[in-house]
Amino acid sequence: MINTSIITIGDELLIGQVIDTNSAFIAQEMNKAGFAIIRRVAISDNAYAIENALNEEKKHSSIILMTGGLGPTADDITKPVLCKYFKGQMVVNEAALANVQHIFENILKRPFTERNRRQCEVPDNCTVILNKKGTAPGMIFKEEFEGKNITVVSMPGVPSEMKGMMIDDVIPMVTKEYKVTHIIHKTALCVGVGESTLADLLIEFEQNLPPNIKLAYLPNYGMVRLRLSATIEDNENTKIETLFLKMQSVVKPYLASDMDESMESILGKLLQSKGETMSTAESCTGGNIAHVLTSIPGSSVFFDGSIVSYSYKAKTDLLQVNKSTIEEFGAVSEEVVKEMATGALKNIGSDYTIAVSGIMGPGGGMPDKPVGTVWVCVGDKYNLKTHKFSFRFDRALNIKQTTMNALNMLRNFILEK
Amino acid sequence: MINTSIITIGDELLIGQVIDTNSAFIAQEMNKAGFAIIRRVAISDNAYAIENALNEEKKHSSIILMTGGLGPTADDITKPVLCKYFKGQMVVNEAALANVQHIFENILKRPFTERNRRQCEVPDNCTVILNKKGTAPGMIFKEEFEGKNITVVSMPGVPSEMKGMMIDDVIPMVTKEYKVTHIIHKTALCVGVGESTLADLLIEFEQNLPPNIKLAYLPNYGMVRLRLSATIEDNENTKIETLFLKMQSVVKPYLASDMDESMESILGKLLQSKGETMSTAESCTGGNIAHVLTSIPGSSVFFDGSIVSYSYKAKTDLLQVNKSTIEEFGAVSEEVVKEMATGALKNIGSDYTIAVSGIMGPGGGMPDKPVGTVWVCVGDKYNLKTHKFSFRFDRALNIKQTTMNALNMLRNFILEK
Repeated sequence: MINTSIITIGDELLIGQVIDTNSAFIAQEMNKAGFAIIRRVAISDNAYAIENALNEEKKHSSIILMTGGLGPTADDITKPVLCKYFKGQMVVNEAALANVQHIFENILKRPFTERNRRQCEVPDNCTVILNKKGTAPGMIFKEEFEGKNITVVSMPGVPSEMKGMMIDDVIPMVTKEYKVTHIIHKTALCVGVGESTLADLLIEFEQNLPPNIKLAYLPNYGMVRLRLSATIEDNENTKIETLFLKMQSVVKPYLASDMDESMESILGKLLQSKGETMSTAESCTGGNIAHVLTSIPGSSVFFDGSIVSYSYKAKTDLLQVNKSTIEEFGAVSEEVVKEMATGALKNIGSDYTIAVSGIMGPGGGMPDKPVGTVWVCVGDKYNLKTHKFSFRFDRALNIKQTTMNALNMLRNFILEK
Repeated sequence: MINTSIITIGDELLIGQVIDTNSAFIAQEMNKAGFAIIRRVAISDNAYAIENALNEEKKHSSIILMTGGLGPTADDITKPVLCKYFKGQMVVNEAALANVQHIFENILKRPFTERNRRQCEVPDNCTVILNKKGTAPGMIFKEEFEGKNITVVSMPGVPSEMKGMMIDDVIPMVTKEYKVTHIIHKTALCVGVGESTLADLLIEFEQNLPPNIKLAYLPNYGMVRLRLSATIEDNENTKIETLFLKMQSVVKPYLASDMDESMESILGKLLQSKGETMSTAESCTGGNIAHVLTSIPGSSVFFDGSIVSYSYKAKTDLLQVNKSTIEEFGAVSEEVVKEMATGALKNIGSDYTIAVSGIMGPGGGMPDKPVGTVWVCVGDKYNLKTHKFSFRFDRALNIKQTTMNALNMLRNFILEK
């Protein structure tokens, strides 16, 4: 296995102002190509931290992928630091210059300034990666260190720019230059069960795994992913397929998918296979169930729309919930979610619907209905099914948990029909 | 300044299956308390990687905060590794045992198993942090290393459990034990302007900053955050307030907020200050604008609801968009978003509304309407304002960009009334 380290540069990551999604993307792509990410390091944008991180990661890895600090402003110091580290001289790169001028003149339609011209200066001992989605060029440096060929790649921190470079340039380059072993992952998704229960079911299975195959438990919002990972040499046969089938049979009662896919994607595929559609009537989730479903490309095939009835007036006007039902039982009640579901089925005209009403917090809790109380109703025009959940998380997590559990309730409703 | 390192443990972070939000939370909280996070390292769940990371981070930092690998399954090895590293013996912790038994019996209502009991074993040389939201206890180890008092804290990787421990135990403990200097951040938000233009405006301002004050540019979805950070000793006076005011005056035409707040929060406060409400009529954003607005606690004061009209039928039935308008101009057109907005204002009864229709990709593009084409309409019952955007990102980014730009359009509409 060729070891890879990721170094992300930027104070915004260290003070927690920005969540690092770049590393996850880089890791996924490198992993698919058969490289092992063994360390990810986030550091401050100062010269000492960058040099020190390079010195350290060279000891662990052959490939070092860096992001950040390539912008046009004074806090962007990655380029001069790398120039000095690899003992180069700054020169204007003509291809990068033409690319950036093109972007300013034809796409951004903004004046091309001296500051932008300086973005096209690069160390003379690097290979330039053209940036198709922005102005800062990427850079590749090569070095020999303790008998290893070290490749250091510096990319911008803007996600779309980094992604373009990873897919179009970095992955093809490292795949060509390093002969790699392969990692195969097989992931199954279990729902409605805890990590401990699954581990008890799988105790014997796990003990008998060969040394090159590893089982990991990844719990997330009421679901647990079970991931088998096999490290194999070229052309080697692996037993992972057989073991993966065996694992699925052990956890069968809880199995929702034999792929690493999301709950919304499982439900979307189920609806698509039946040629049916769904809608949502959302109060406490405020449109998040609709948002999650429509994040799937092509979701218009199975998703018709949603009514987010946040106010009482929206519940009565848009979903024809009876005012008397709200007055008698409260907006967070089995009766109200049933009327919301009925209204959504009628007004949106979908085959199925999900209706939710709850108290997400931090305010709004009552003695008999504390924060985290959520009523969910799923069904079609013939039949409705309700469930009351009691979550005990913060607002954002309560919204996510409600979303995932509601999607799973509709999935079960359809499967049990 | 007391240096802190964060070590996150888990293969799921290195293969990119999970995005690391824990580190951002820990960094924010430590930063507020006056500690500098200087490195964040993600490593694999194997003993060598954990020991090696501890050895390395001890060189850089006095406080090492670790998350992950404390679960009940075989891939969770942090606890035995730390026990060996700090030369302890495993013993059952009675307080942790009582806590976990309580959680199983009274909250989860699941049987308490031998596997759960083992979660209450901890090294005898650590201080236990009780887990109020889960079963794995946290651990605090102390060590002297090269004349420094090193504190190593191990917390679970489940976000809600880690967050509880950070707030209730870790922050109070480190604040008490380490005398700290302070970091003050002041952040302003600019909208509708690029990073380079801002940097040109601020060139003189930035050159004249004192050495203990730093300016950072943080671009994000059509917005740029400008952050001034001052490192100061106890009781020292700082010029940051004066400089922050000066910086705001320089970027005034683009200034949206003098706080580190989100666009949805700025719009929500504006509506609240006027005692008015809004709604959304969403096609391509699929409910994300409503979701973003309702992520704010108490948003029911200014948000009435939303109609997510994903299908043509939903557009005509729920928003009374004319079928002929869709046929003549297409669903992604100025005419359709205007009718959607009119329908939403009438049916939901809000003071303002946002209507959006566009092509988010990857499919659905047409020669005259490529992927990234979005029509946005904002307004009230007297006046509507429209704008066509051309984004060039992927589906998820197009949805986010549309959301932020639409919120900003409504903000400007209200301010310019």
